[in-house]
Amino acid sequence: MPRFLSRVVRTASVAVFSLCVLAACGPNLPHQETIEGLQARALDDPLAWGLLSSLTTDVGPRMPGTRGDVLGVEWAKARMAALGFDRVRTEPVRFPLWRRGLEQARLVAPRVQDLAVTALGGSPGTRGVINAQVVHFADLAALEAAAPGSLQGRIAFISKRMERSRGGAGYAEAVPGRTRGPFVAAEKGARALVIRSIGTSTDRLPHTGTVSTSEDGTPVPAAAISNPDADLLVAMLEQGETVRLELRLDVGFSGTAESHNVIGEFDGREDTGEYVTIGAHLDSWDLGTGAHDDGTGVAITLAAAKLVADLPQRPRRGIRVILFANEEQGIHGAKSYAERHAGDLASHVIGAESDLGGGRIYQFRSNVRPEDEPAMDQLARYLSPLGIPRQLDQPAGGGADIGQLRRLGMPVVDLSHDATDYFDLHHTANDTLAKVDAQDLAFNVAAWVTFVYFAAETDRGFGPIDPSP
Amino acid sequence: MPRFLSRVVRTASVAVFSLCVLAACGPNLPHQETIEGLQARALDDPLAWGLLSSLTTDVGPRMPGTRGDVLGVEWAKARMAALGFDRVRTEPVRFPLWRRGLEQARLVAPRVQDLAVTALGGSPGTRGVINAQVVHFADLAALEAAAPGSLQGRIAFISKRMERSRGGAGYAEAVPGRTRGPFVAAEKGARALVIRSIGTSTDRLPHTGTVSTSEDGTPVPAAAISNPDADLLVAMLEQGETVRLELRLDVGFSGTAESHNVIGEFDGREDTGEYVTIGAHLDSWDLGTGAHDDGTGVAITLAAAKLVADLPQRPRRGIRVILFANEEQGIHGAKSYAERHAGDLASHVIGAESDLGGGRIYQFRSNVRPEDEPAMDQLARYLSPLGIPRQLDQPAGGGADIGQLRRLGMPVVDLSHDATDYFDLHHTANDTLAKVDAQDLAFNVAAWVTFVYFAAETDRGFGPIDPSP
Repeated sequence: MPRFLSRVVRTASVAVFSLCVLAACGPNLPHQETIEGLQARALDDPLAWGLLSSLTTDVGPRMPGTRGDVLGVEWAKARMAALGFDRVRTEPVRFPLWRRGLEQARLVAPRVQDLAVTALGGSPGTRGVINAQVVHFADLAALEAAAPGSLQGRIAFISKRMERSRGGAGYAEAVPGRTRGPFVAAEKGARALVIRSIGTSTDRLPHTGTVSTSEDGTPVPAAAISNPDADLLVAMLEQGETVRLELRLDVGFSGTAESHNVIGEFDGREDTGEYVTIGAHLDSWDLGTGAHDDGTGVAITLAAAKLVADLPQRPRRGIRVILFANEEQGIHGAKSYAERHAGDLASHVIGAESDLGGGRIYQFRSNVRPEDEPAMDQLARYLSPLGIPRQLDQPAGGGADIGQLRRLGMPVVDLSHDATDYFDLHHTANDTLAKVDAQDLAFNVAAWVTFVYFAAETDRGFGPIDPSP
Repeated sequence: MPRFLSRVVRTASVAVFSLCVLAACGPNLPHQETIEGLQARALDDPLAWGLLSSLTTDVGPRMPGTRGDVLGVEWAKARMAALGFDRVRTEPVRFPLWRRGLEQARLVAPRVQDLAVTALGGSPGTRGVINAQVVHFADLAALEAAAPGSLQGRIAFISKRMERSRGGAGYAEAVPGRTRGPFVAAEKGARALVIRSIGTSTDRLPHTGTVSTSEDGTPVPAAAISNPDADLLVAMLEQGETVRLELRLDVGFSGTAESHNVIGEFDGREDTGEYVTIGAHLDSWDLGTGAHDDGTGVAITLAAAKLVADLPQRPRRGIRVILFANEEQGIHGAKSYAERHAGDLASHVIGAESDLGGGRIYQFRSNVRPEDEPAMDQLARYLSPLGIPRQLDQPAGGGADIGQLRRLGMPVVDLSHDATDYFDLHHTANDTLAKVDAQDLAFNVAAWVTFVYFAAETDRGFGPIDPSP
């Protein structure tokens, strides 16, 4: 067994071993020894876990505009400084402040039961209790098909279920019910909208998430109930029962708040002015402690940057870690960053984000100029011992935050997390440290050091891609 | 393959097949054909699932003294009548009425976070908000070791974790923290007690459950927080942080309420005056819909009685199903029943209850006179094709409710459910239909028809065991 293999196999899984044997990893590549060392170190390194543990314990929920958000920014600055980043700075981000108070949903007919409910981010409040009959729609399209004004005095209920999959495609299919549903329900005259949570949990924990920030019109008060509660309502409605709910949401916007993107940079060994730009979002929803969303991304990107920067020799280019403010309520931090740095795309040589939870990375995709494809082939060779193949069907999107820079022309790579279980926790009270697997986290750092080091070191370089709106 | 085997194997699992082959099921036993038919029918029968689905959907939570409790009693009477029980009656049960209102726990130092909390049943209210520092105890013994009065102005916190196991032994080990803890905390001068939930869930859902009803003294207000929240407090306390909580529990006793044991009987074909007495408890906690606890027991015992009674020929003895009132808050229904029927033990020829959730039955135990042991050996032969061995290490206890009759001298059998996952749901909001496996439920009915039919039919009979307090 080549040394490269033996070292990785010692710490990685059997799957790694088999894949590499099957793929016949072949002769040494230019940076192979350095990368094999980085991967092995990452698989054993407690740094990412320590960061995640501290972020979720010492800071906790980081909803934009709250005290937790401020603590998060302070934490990030202090951690970056402690990790030895060469420069740490913040950039202000302003956004409408949305507050969550008491939220209650109670089934009152055909019988009484408290439901597990949470308001959607951006929802207006109910101003007291709404007591109304439920009208059932299988999905957003069915609600859209209702006659305008036909839901006067009623609560619209969308029961569409998100499907589970490794890539998480079911989320995009179901989420318009949450983002656009409250506006469509308003058009139809409804007093409120209740949706089945956009998530795969079978627990009595609802999934929050924001309504659209770009839709015309005014949304009705809107909330998500847990999957088992949605099942209950559907069972009653299918029996022909008249279902009534009491809904109280003491939530809503009040003024404007400020938070900060936190940016840390490690210099490269050459003065190229180029940075590999990686990131995650620092904010979270309030129900949990933002462990998977996006504490793991914060921990992975910080740890990967640190491990690469700690090499005996820095890579050619610099590494920039951006911890974005307020992704959850409208991608405010990344949009602000992209606007501010639109004239400086050249320094953002290539980028990636981690924002799909802490599941194991199982593939990667890229979005680079055609002439930079050979570099991506080379990256595939380095990732292959970890069992992470290149997926060529679709170009990388960059994710919600880094995608804002991709749209301006920055090439991006997606290291895709296995999201099979992610949407059990996503935006729920269950998104806490207890649900993160430390070994998966270390594995993901091993994938990330591979990308970060290679992208920062390769002499091929990367040029801008076509901007896309 | 003998016909007995082939018919069961068609519907049962591979495990059944292997076990029976290994055990060399041997020549036909007296009631073999009838029992094999009953088992096969039970494995395919939707009755138990239908009952459970209706109980959790149409009735929902059945906390003693609530409207749901009344609905539950009505439901049970109507269902027994519809199933063709020869007699259906109720017996009143009185108990102190305990109410749950708003309950909130908030971490306020070293930082702010809402915790997932629920009051313990029987807890007094906090009369407003208690804001106090937390003092950490690893278990009840550590709290007991504290000096009397030493916790003045503090909230005691017991962090003992319940261990997971098939038999659920970890529950008995951890539960004194819940039942006795609030009284011990009072002795030590604490203002309140917060415990790590007695349960194995890693979800942000706390496990409720009652405080002792037999302890001297007055308990302090007491609540359980979810396991992840307990982990969070422990992590902070281990870092040396001063942890403060705000606790508000609008709960407490107010007067007395009445519910009913619901009793249905199928006659036997002979006028022996003897009944196989089986049961479950009809009440539940309020947080979920009492699906596993104890909807499955209600469904299993009703379905098993019905399947046996529907045989072309009724068994020799009668079958009595008792759905007990208010087990959760002090075994009130079963104690009342035992008191009322203490002079009529002779008609309670043998008994069993189902009250450990819907997991697959994996063993049985018995508690009979020495001269009745051969009958239990015979029962073992009938249960063997289902892969349910006899466990001889311990005598059967009968469970919380049927155990009240065992104490008076009624022989009992325990059909032990696999409780590995039960305590993930037990006494939480997650105890809903979504968490019950329909195939496991049918399997359990197959085990139960075996016991019920055999006990009702065997010509051996059963005599009373020694009463034990």
